[in-house]
Amino acid sequence: MITRRSLLVGGAAAAGTALLGTLPSIIQAEGSRTPSPGATQPPGRPLGEPTSALSARSPFERPARTPIDQVTGASFSPLQELSGTITPTDLHFERHHAGVPIINPADYGLLVHGLVDRPTVFTLADLKRLPSTTRTYFLECAGNGRTAYRSPKRELTPQLIDGLTSNAEWTGVPLTTVLTEIGVKPGAAWMLAEGGDAALLSRSIPLEKAMDDAVLVYAQNGEPLRPAAGYPVRLLLPGWEGNVNVKWLRRLKLIAQPNMSRDETSRYTDPLPNGTARQFSFVMDVKSIITYPAHPVRLGRQEWVQIAGIAWSGRGRITRVEVSTDGGVTWTAGELQEPVLSKAHARFTRMWRWTGEPATLLSRATDETGATQPTLVEFREKRGQGTDYHFNHIRGWVVEQDGLVVYQVGA
Amino acid sequence: MITRRSLLVGGAAAAGTALLGTLPSIIQAEGSRTPSPGATQPPGRPLGEPTSALSARSPFERPARTPIDQVTGASFSPLQELSGTITPTDLHFERHHAGVPIINPADYGLLVHGLVDRPTVFTLADLKRLPSTTRTYFLECAGNGRTAYRSPKRELTPQLIDGLTSNAEWTGVPLTTVLTEIGVKPGAAWMLAEGGDAALLSRSIPLEKAMDDAVLVYAQNGEPLRPAAGYPVRLLLPGWEGNVNVKWLRRLKLIAQPNMSRDETSRYTDPLPNGTARQFSFVMDVKSIITYPAHPVRLGRQEWVQIAGIAWSGRGRITRVEVSTDGGVTWTAGELQEPVLSKAHARFTRMWRWTGEPATLLSRATDETGATQPTLVEFREKRGQGTDYHFNHIRGWVVEQDGLVVYQVGA
Repeated sequence: MITRRSLLVGGAAAAGTALLGTLPSIIQAEGSRTPSPGATQPPGRPLGEPTSALSARSPFERPARTPIDQVTGASFSPLQELSGTITPTDLHFERHHAGVPIINPADYGLLVHGLVDRPTVFTLADLKRLPSTTRTYFLECAGNGRTAYRSPKRELTPQLIDGLTSNAEWTGVPLTTVLTEIGVKPGAAWMLAEGGDAALLSRSIPLEKAMDDAVLVYAQNGEPLRPAAGYPVRLLLPGWEGNVNVKWLRRLKLIAQPNMSRDETSRYTDPLPNGTARQFSFVMDVKSIITYPAHPVRLGRQEWVQIAGIAWSGRGRITRVEVSTDGGVTWTAGELQEPVLSKAHARFTRMWRWTGEPATLLSRATDETGATQPTLVEFREKRGQGTDYHFNHIRGWVVEQDGLVVYQVGA
Repeated sequence: MITRRSLLVGGAAAAGTALLGTLPSIIQAEGSRTPSPGATQPPGRPLGEPTSALSARSPFERPARTPIDQVTGASFSPLQELSGTITPTDLHFERHHAGVPIINPADYGLLVHGLVDRPTVFTLADLKRLPSTTRTYFLECAGNGRTAYRSPKRELTPQLIDGLTSNAEWTGVPLTTVLTEIGVKPGAAWMLAEGGDAALLSRSIPLEKAMDDAVLVYAQNGEPLRPAAGYPVRLLLPGWEGNVNVKWLRRLKLIAQPNMSRDETSRYTDPLPNGTARQFSFVMDVKSIITYPAHPVRLGRQEWVQIAGIAWSGRGRITRVEVSTDGGVTWTAGELQEPVLSKAHARFTRMWRWTGEPATLLSRATDETGATQPTLVEFREKRGQGTDYHFNHIRGWVVEQDGLVVYQVGA
């Protein structure tokens, strides 16, 4: 038996070799490296760093969004580096149409007008005084997955495929509270939401959604919204495509018909194969992606692998995520991390041992409405190669002979 | 009726005055300021900031822990600035006994030995290969609340009273998985957990807890643990006092009897009024604190106030938080934000209108075991003035004649 004393005396390499023979099978893989001496360093170390105003990340961990430095662009969340379900606030994906305005909260006002009884400007303090709600929801850009659909490459990572989705705990005021307070007039059926960025991005929202679960959000993961997320106030429409969750919200106008704004005519309308297009396709469809193993991970032969990923649906709770390791011939239910919340990322896992033969890993999510992800072939047939938004087909990862994991191009 | 055009043309002050007359009662308070023109600024603004690798906070929001720059100290989370239930990772409280070591994950190893069949050193990669779990739990320093108990002052803030509690989503490996893999020998009843800081902090843990819900944690709120939180691996014992959740975990030794280490004899033992002391008082008792309104907030007369706070218990779920505005004569149930999770912060709120008379605000939490918070008088009788840990008595905020909120000294 290996005692602590023999470990300290015997030196790291010897101890490592001795211990390797006793490693349980699940962590003993071909090519497994020698256990490190970290646990067996002698005491007598120098004092560490002092306490701080804000804790910093380890210098050995450098998560980052990408690409960066675009004023009218998007930055993708590093899905492959994330655990659990909460996206760290500074790694939440971003998408701007004219850059991030820096707004002084003392200057902020939200005008609610149009078909209402009492047009009102709400200050930030006004909104914070109203009864608040806190809920965990995903946000996803309508165009998430476009690169993988239009220009698939073996080298795509989870970040580059689906990094325009993130998940956070949001706090704010239910919009229904505000609308009830100021009185909605008969005839109001839509609501124009306008952002305070230079683009004045605006979208038309059915009043039914506004009165359902819409939230005027001022906090994310416990802290005030950051400028890139819409500080001081954004609209949150749970489960609906990112752009309608208007950031830097400056105006809500209740109207009888959709406004047909630039942002809902020149963009965010989906061309269909028959030459028509679908408009106001707000809800994000059921979807999933395996984030481990994924490119550029290289697996070791006979290595146990915890296949892990995220699944989400704009229609409600995820009820099942199936995983295939043989390209879809057979499927097994993955484990879902509880609690599974409605319209939020759910984490799924499945243990698997890679034998050394080529394998294709797929995930297929199903939500509480019974909706499930289509194959790439089914998706293309229905939506066409020119479609711009709402890419929710099944994604695949190929484990090659040498263990390298690459994105599955075609299906 | 106020139209958008009249707002734009009329100027901010005029529009503000006109609108004030139409503000709904809930946001119309004496002394309420003029609605700002933020919503009515004309378009034609410059482009904003570009996308970035990591999003930054607004320059108008500067949350910070305090105090700082202590090697063997603690920094307190700014509870009064937080919303919802998740504590932002960089604002999670910290408590170190010898500073924060910066550990290279390639050098990391966790030795598990003692009364086990196969003593093993686990690398970080080994641990990440095992089936993971994700759960949301609070952590609280055993000494949280000591200043408010020993040296109460009117000027104490939520941060200074109870800022040594935080709440996060943790991901790691259930300890039971590791112990089952390596085999526990008969006779093992305790487990020594040793940290990799210069203090080699160590505590004895009953094996029953280790086999129940203990987790070897490597991620917090979606990202790798930060050094101040124990990077790369810490022990998490849900609901138990902070110091046993050993950070920079380097060694677990299964033993027959408690180790009686320095950290469980010279510290973390509670003196009692009868001259004896209680030891191994691991579980954090049911507790709550109102975080708004709190010092140094000043309320306006006739102002509607959303009383808000957090409640938690190391024994399970919070089932009820009652709020009193008259110093405990009458109590009303607050609203609990769903989902309420076991051994996690729960957010409670209650709407209240301050009439202008002095008032005393209290909160009293009850958990699923039926345990509830004692009054300060009850607590002092049972535990004595010299007690060092586990301060869970009811806290009070006094609203003075002029609206200033101060901590209630005495009861």
